[in-house]
Amino acid sequence: MDIKPYMEKIGKKARIASKVIASTDSKTKKLALTFIAEALNSNRQKILKANSIDLANGESGGLDYSLMDRLELNESRISAMIDGVHQIISLPDPIGEITDLTDRPSGVRLGKMRVPLGVIGIIYESRPNVTIDAASLCLKSGNSTILRGGSEAIKSNQAISNCIKEGLSTAKLPESIVQLVETTDRQAVGKLITMSDYVDIIVPRGGKGLIKRIMQEAQIPMIKHLDGICHVYIDDKADLEMAFNIALNSKTHRYGVCNAMETLIIAEGIAKNILPRLAEAYKRKNVEIRGCAATQKFIDCSLALQSDWSTEYLAPILSIRIVKDISEAIKHIACYGSQHTDSIVTQDESRALRFIREVDSSSVMHNASTRFADGFEYGLGAEIGISTDKIHVRGPVGLEGLTSQKWIVFGHGEIR
Amino acid sequence: MDIKPYMEKIGKKARIASKVIASTDSKTKKLALTFIAEALNSNRQKILKANSIDLANGESGGLDYSLMDRLELNESRISAMIDGVHQIISLPDPIGEITDLTDRPSGVRLGKMRVPLGVIGIIYESRPNVTIDAASLCLKSGNSTILRGGSEAIKSNQAISNCIKEGLSTAKLPESIVQLVETTDRQAVGKLITMSDYVDIIVPRGGKGLIKRIMQEAQIPMIKHLDGICHVYIDDKADLEMAFNIALNSKTHRYGVCNAMETLIIAEGIAKNILPRLAEAYKRKNVEIRGCAATQKFIDCSLALQSDWSTEYLAPILSIRIVKDISEAIKHIACYGSQHTDSIVTQDESRALRFIREVDSSSVMHNASTRFADGFEYGLGAEIGISTDKIHVRGPVGLEGLTSQKWIVFGHGEIR
Repeated sequence: MDIKPYMEKIGKKARIASKVIASTDSKTKKLALTFIAEALNSNRQKILKANSIDLANGESGGLDYSLMDRLELNESRISAMIDGVHQIISLPDPIGEITDLTDRPSGVRLGKMRVPLGVIGIIYESRPNVTIDAASLCLKSGNSTILRGGSEAIKSNQAISNCIKEGLSTAKLPESIVQLVETTDRQAVGKLITMSDYVDIIVPRGGKGLIKRIMQEAQIPMIKHLDGICHVYIDDKADLEMAFNIALNSKTHRYGVCNAMETLIIAEGIAKNILPRLAEAYKRKNVEIRGCAATQKFIDCSLALQSDWSTEYLAPILSIRIVKDISEAIKHIACYGSQHTDSIVTQDESRALRFIREVDSSSVMHNASTRFADGFEYGLGAEIGISTDKIHVRGPVGLEGLTSQKWIVFGHGEIR
Repeated sequence: MDIKPYMEKIGKKARIASKVIASTDSKTKKLALTFIAEALNSNRQKILKANSIDLANGESGGLDYSLMDRLELNESRISAMIDGVHQIISLPDPIGEITDLTDRPSGVRLGKMRVPLGVIGIIYESRPNVTIDAASLCLKSGNSTILRGGSEAIKSNQAISNCIKEGLSTAKLPESIVQLVETTDRQAVGKLITMSDYVDIIVPRGGKGLIKRIMQEAQIPMIKHLDGICHVYIDDKADLEMAFNIALNSKTHRYGVCNAMETLIIAEGIAKNILPRLAEAYKRKNVEIRGCAATQKFIDCSLALQSDWSTEYLAPILSIRIVKDISEAIKHIACYGSQHTDSIVTQDESRALRFIREVDSSSVMHNASTRFADGFEYGLGAEIGISTDKIHVRGPVGLEGLTSQKWIVFGHGEIR
C-alpha cells in the first residue's frame, strides 16, 4: 500500500467531515453517541472475537505482560467503554457558548463564541478503549478525528471503529467524522503528524519513546506530556499526621500513573520527626527508597544518584531529598521537575502561597495528594490527556481543550 | 561570529531571566517600564542619530520607499513610542490572577492561576517601534524576550535596546529580561526558532515571505497570521445605507492593513440596488474593481480571475462576487478566506446568527466594518499581533495571549 496517498485521502475526508460535525447540533451529537453505545453493546461478541485474534498474535509475537494486560478486552471492559460514552453524552456541549459580552465605546457589542478545533489526530498504543474514549470526546466537542492505534490492537480497534461507523450512520452523519488508520505501517504516523493542511492538532498518548519521536517530527501543534516527575515537599511547619498521609498516598495509591509522586522533599527541621515513621510505612508497601546523604542519617536506604532526581519510576521506588527550606525545595523542583504536579504540605499560609506562585507546574497543590491531578477529580468529566506545556491548554484536558474561541461582533452599522 | 553558541548563550540567559520576571511584582514591573520610558525620552538624540545611520545605509542599499518610511524615526514617532509604554503601564497586570475557584466533592478547592509563558522570541522587520512595543508587552506579562529585528534597523534597535537595558537596570532587574540579537546574520533566525529548550513561543511579525519561512523551519509554537483576506457579505435583507457605509469603510479606511476587506460578496437580489452606487464611490477613491461575470452586468469593471479570490491586495483594489444567497457566501468564504475577519450586513437576525456560527474566522461580525478587528477596538489596550490559528489564542492578541494558566489546588490534607 502507498501510504502517502492513503493518508492524504483520510486527511481530506476528515477536513470535509469536520465542517459537518462543527455545525451539527447538540441533539444530533447526543443521538450519534447513543447509537454508538448501542452498537458497542450489540456487537460485544464481534469485538471480543477480534480482540482474541490480537491477543493470540500478541502472545505468539512475545508481547510483554503489561501490554497484553492493557490489550485484553472482556465483558466488563466493554461495559466500561459503554459507560464512558454515556458519561460523555451527559456532559454539557461546549460548542456555540457565547461569553465575555461587552459593549465597546464604538457602539459594537463584542463577545466570544466557543468553536471546535477542526481535525484531531490521536496516536496511541495497546489499549483499545482509547479508540472509543477519544472518538467520543472529539465528536462531542464538534471535531472530526483520525485515530492511529497500535499495530498490536488493530483487529480490536477495527471492530470498535465499525461500531462507531454504525452509530454515526444511524444518526445520518458521515462515517468519516471518525476514521481509523487501518494500516500498521509506521510511515502512517510520520505522514499524520506532518499533514498540516488536514490536521489541526495531534494528541499522542503512550510511552515516552513514542512521544519523543512524534515531538521531533511533528509539524502540527500537540497536546502532550512527556514525564510526570511529581514532588511532595514537607515543610517544617507541616502537620505531621497530614504530611504522613499525603506522602504515603501520593506514592502508593497507584504506582504506574503520571501523577504519582516520584521524589519526596523534606525540610531538615522536620525530617527526624517524620522520616523514620514514613520509611517504615513505605517498607510495609515494599517501596524501595533512594535517599540523599542527609536522608541516610535518619533512615536505612541506598544513596540516590544524580539521575534519580530526574527519573519517573512509575514503580514502587521513591527518591527522598532533605533540603534546608522552601527556597531549596522550589529550586530542586525547578531543576529536576517535569512541570506536571507538585504539592507542599505546610500550616503556614504565606509559604503555601509562595509555593503555589513560584512552582511552574501544570498543577500546584497545598495540603493535598498529587493524585488529585486528574480530569475526573477536576470535574472535567473525562480527559483526553494531560498537558505539561503552557501553550493552548495545561494540565488535565477535557472537552474545552479540544475547542477554541472566535471573537464575535454585533454592530448596528458601525464604521471606523 | 559563530552563531550557534552566540544564540544559545542568549537563550540560556533568557531562560534564567524568565524565572526572575515571572515572580517580579506588579509595582516593580511598572517601575521598570517607567524608567524605560524615561530613558527613551532622555536618549532621543542618540536614537535619532542611530536611526539616521540606518536610513543612510538603507538609501545607499536601495531600500524601497515603504520600508524606508517604516524605518524612519522622528521626534513625534519617539513620543508615540513613549506613549505606548505608558499605555502598557496603565493596563492591569494579568499575572497571579486566580479564577474559576470551585469546591470539589473530594473537599479540595480547585482554581486556576494566570502565569507567564516564559521566553518569547519576536522576529520582525523594519519598524523599530516594534522593539519597544513587544518588549513592554512581554515584560508586563512576566515574560523574558529575545528580539530579532530586521538588519536594516539594527542601529535604531540597538539604541532603543540600550534604553530598555537602562530602565531595567535602574529598577534593579536583570538586563537579560529583554535581549536584542545584535547580529544581522540570517542564521540567527534559524537558531532562534529551533531552540525549544530556551524559547517557549515565537511571534513572527512581517511580510508573508518571512512568516512562511519561519513556519517551515520552526520547532516552537507560534502566534501568527499569514493572510488577511477579509470579506463583507451584503445580504438581500440588508439596510442599503448601512451596507453602503460598511462596504466603503471596510475597503477604504486604510488599504495596507490586514483587516481591510479584499472581497465584497453581494446577494443577487440586492445587487442592482447597491452595486452602481458603491462602484461610483469606489471610483472616487480610485479603487480598482475586479468583478465576477455577474458583477459586470451591473457595473463597468475588469473580470476577476480565480486567483483574485485568494489574493490579499493590501492596496486600492477590490474583488466583487455576486452570489445567490447566504449559503453561497459562506461557501465562498470557507473556500477562499484566510480565517481572519468576515462580516455580514443584514437586518435578518437568524441569518446573522447563522453567519456568525458557520463562518470559521478569528473575528466574525454582524453589521460592522471589518476594520474593528483590532486589539485597541477590542479593549485589549495593545496588541502583539493577530492570530488566525485556533491553537492557544485567536484574533487580536494582547497581554492575556502571552500568558497561560496553571491549576491550583487548596486542600486540608485530602488523599485519594
